[in-house]
Amino acid sequence: MTCIDLNSDLGESFGPWPMGDDVSMLPIVTSANIACGFHAGDPAGILAVLHEAARLGVSVGAHVGYRDLVGFGRRNMDPSSQELIGDTIYQIGALQGLARAAGTTVRYVKPHGALYNAIAQDAHQADDVIAAIKAVDPALALMALSGAPIVQQARSAGLTVVCPAFADRAYNADGSLVSRRLPGSVIHDPEQVASRMLRLVKEGRFTAIDGTEIELEAQSICVHGDTPTGVSIARSVRDALVQEGVELKSFTHG
Amino acid sequence: MTCIDLNSDLGESFGPWPMGDDVSMLPIVTSANIACGFHAGDPAGILAVLHEAARLGVSVGAHVGYRDLVGFGRRNMDPSSQELIGDTIYQIGALQGLARAAGTTVRYVKPHGALYNAIAQDAHQADDVIAAIKAVDPALALMALSGAPIVQQARSAGLTVVCPAFADRAYNADGSLVSRRLPGSVIHDPEQVASRMLRLVKEGRFTAIDGTEIELEAQSICVHGDTPTGVSIARSVRDALVQEGVELKSFTHG
Amino acid sequence: MTCIDLNSDLGESFGPWPMGDDVSMLPIVTSANIACGFHAGDPAGILAVLHEAARLGVSVGAHVGYRDLVGFGRRNMDPSSQELIGDTIYQIGALQGLARAAGTTVRYVKPHGALYNAIAQDAHQADDVIAAIKAVDPALALMALSGAPIVQQARSAGLTVVCPAFADRAYNADGSLVSRRLPGSVIHDPEQVASRMLRLVKEGRFTAIDGTEIELEAQSICVHGDTPTGVSIARSVRDALVQEGVELKSFTHG
Amino acid sequence: MTCIDLNSDLGESFGPWPMGDDVSMLPIVTSANIACGFHAGDPAGILAVLHEAARLGVSVGAHVGYRDLVGFGRRNMDPSSQELIGDTIYQIGALQGLARAAGTTVRYVKPHGALYNAIAQDAHQADDVIAAIKAVDPALALMALSGAPIVQQARSAGLTVVCPAFADRAYNADGSLVSRRLPGSVIHDPEQVASRMLRLVKEGRFTAIDGTEIELEAQSICVHGDTPTGVSIARSVRDALVQEGVELKSFTHG
Repeated sequence: MTCIDLNSDLGESFGPWPMGDDVSMLPIVTSANIACGFHAGDPAGILAVLHEAARLGVSVGAHVGYRDLVGFGRRNMDPSSQELIGDTIYQIGALQGLARAAGTTVRYVKPHGALYNAIAQDAHQADDVIAAIKAVDPALALMALSGAPIVQQARSAGLTVVCPAFADRAYNADGSLVSRRLPGSVIHDPEQVASRMLRLVKEGRFTAIDGTEIELEAQSICVHGDTPTGVSIARSVRDALVQEGVELKSFTHG
Repeated sequence: MTCIDLNSDLGESFGPWPMGDDVSMLPIVTSANIACGFHAGDPAGILAVLHEAARLGVSVGAHVGYRDLVGFGRRNMDPSSQELIGDTIYQIGALQGLARAAGTTVRYVKPHGALYNAIAQDAHQADDVIAAIKAVDPALALMALSGAPIVQQARSAGLTVVCPAFADRAYNADGSLVSRRLPGSVIHDPEQVASRMLRLVKEGRFTAIDGTEIELEAQSICVHGDTPTGVSIARSVRDALVQEGVELKSFTHG
Repeated sequence: MTCIDLNSDLGESFGPWPMGDDVSMLPIVTSANIACGFHAGDPAGILAVLHEAARLGVSVGAHVGYRDLVGFGRRNMDPSSQELIGDTIYQIGALQGLARAAGTTVRYVKPHGALYNAIAQDAHQADDVIAAIKAVDPALALMALSGAPIVQQARSAGLTVVCPAFADRAYNADGSLVSRRLPGSVIHDPEQVASRMLRLVKEGRFTAIDGTEIELEAQSICVHGDTPTGVSIARSVRDALVQEGVELKSFTHG
Repeated sequence: MTCIDLNSDLGESFGPWPMGDDVSMLPIVTSANIACGFHAGDPAGILAVLHEAARLGVSVGAHVGYRDLVGFGRRNMDPSSQELIGDTIYQIGALQGLARAAGTTVRYVKPHGALYNAIAQDAHQADDVIAAIKAVDPALALMALSGAPIVQQARSAGLTVVCPAFADRAYNADGSLVSRRLPGSVIHDPEQVASRMLRLVKEGRFTAIDGTEIELEAQSICVHGDTPTGVSIARSVRDALVQEGVELKSFTHG
């Protein structure tokens, strides 16, 4: 039977500032990328999300980012190796502590924002993140950009790597994402999003923005809960997959 | 054979700002209270101290504090229970992750500064810290103020509690510390400091500022490394104890 | 002709996290209490609000707070005099710089949250805030709690003081606010809110929660824009006042 | 009569962490680049330095940096235009407020660390900093890298630009600094440092690392006070210049 994971970024509120609709998203996804306090998330809020994830049996990942709260971890930075290794371990450890208190366990690491993009291509920063994960727990999987050099680099280093497909994003013919600055980069029609993801899961391929068919490695589908539309698209994807007999299951459950 | 633990606050540098002389202090102490990033400490610096502590076999504790970097965790605050529990678990978890990466393990928790003083008396904040420790790992010991209500409160809750004696501080007849604002509160003579601590270890008592003899529960002696004098006093205390046949050993061993 | 000021807390977004509906509130109010970055607000966001306030002719005040972003400045703290004076001047100066860039001028200071409540009663912290304002610009007015010791203290020090009435809050017979923890502390009916404020403006008095009539010094009415209901209540208050011939005018204009 | 300015980075302590020896440096220099809280500096500490600068008649500049405290503003970042403009104005305004409270005035802006290097070459970030300065006060001078594109760019935009020579750094034949990673990049001999700067002031030229003579535009000499050696080198430079009849005078005094 075909199965796939559904993941989303959660726990990104900070102090008095809410973000996203974690309560609505947790019953939809099978994996929760939970902020660790550097780009978003405060301990009390993170702990509350972890309790809910534990209750629902949703798998938990550490959504680690650059130390740039006001920039939400979306600005490029060039930390030293020592800084990046230290910051990554610190965030993973903090989430592990909170997860333990909530009765669950951190299963994987998903770098966030500018760090996610940087390590996809920059072998040096990728090495640091890989070293950090191996130092804290080599059994943690790494969620990384499909088709990017990091995937092979991390596997060679002994890590399990999973690749997300972005449900509502258009892809170029070479498998990269269409830049958000270009028209058509984001797909807003829930049915279209769902049917594309269904094809990806069933056939391992779907249509790029220029009409060519592309293949994409994907063990997970990334959906977003930071807008009401996002939640409804996420639900559409989930419903379409379930209806077609696809099993939704975290990649961390073997 | 009589034995005692020697502890000190370490890892309190931040980014480009050094603090203390961790390299000199680590061979002196048997327990290192390591900052966790909220009142002091950055991940890369903390990790370096942990590596050195691991190499020397120094026991590691989480020196958790209020989230107040500029105030060094020395200002009173009234976080909510959710905030204090979350912040405490987050800091312990972060240090556990870094300790694991350094090949060692966090053995105890020492609240810092204003939090240390607050939980000594404030049963509510004490409850939060105790709950946090139990949630993340009930085997962690708590280092708390000798003679204060927190000691019994934490023991009733099932935690191991150890009490430090402050090597260079004068005590009042009731066992409390003489306020730093009063003359004579800090003892600067290394020999005097050493002989007082020796009596404490051997007889469980020493002389208060008014000349009366007081008894003090102490499983550890706290020495400071943030000044050159501090390091030399710490070394004097260690040497005096060793010369008199006292074994220096972390309270977490055996 | 009777006139009154309408003020609201604005500019409290932070990085990717929005707060309140500043665009809807600015045409309603005559004075904008703008966050200065310590409890909320980032420079780019603050600058955007200042440009809009300048365009609409809304008077600008510095909404200074404790340095506690995650706690939104709502947690009690005990900074030293040097810290509180420095922090207050820093925030006022930063807002003055941004205001100048936006073509407007900071006219007053409103301490926020826990600092607002602290200085109402704590003469020491009140002194520090007063000293800071006088050091940076003694022409700045201070917005402070009606009936509290700070009012006379600041006036004796030479500052202009204005007192806000809180539009949607119930008052005790002694002129203090009913604690938010008690039932009836917040009034949700827009018409009731509007009619109370109208009486206050016209007669200088309105009904306390126990039915007694109280007098209250108020040169401004505080309305909230952090909820959709808040915006609509604010608009009701404004409309009711205008309909009854009350002129809405910043207390800083003449 | 020949005259020159001597500048140094000051006010870079943060909370409990000291940096540099501001008290020793202030009588040596004629211009103080004072941290504004983003890469270093807390309001109370900055205010104390400003009081001393005011007392000694030392000219004050805003040492603005990226919002990266733990990285001390030395890591590259790519803020948006809105962020960089807002952050720059905010920092200048904050220092202006503190300077006013200390009885002095901010005269110039020196971008710090990674921002200093970025704007030297990156016309986009340079534009943002120039726009920020013009928006808050177009009379503020800009201190920028001698020979870099920013110099002409800022002058074309109407700003006064002054260029520092770095007293203890070796230069390449093209007028750029020898990278700190290369041997010989830093000159440690106080006499050699002083005689080089004396030649620069008197003749406008000195010897590059490869032996060629280079010309350098410099209205100021930058000395460092973050090490005991730095302070003694700074004093040597000052003494050598004074002995040879060079007048030490801030570039902001006409």
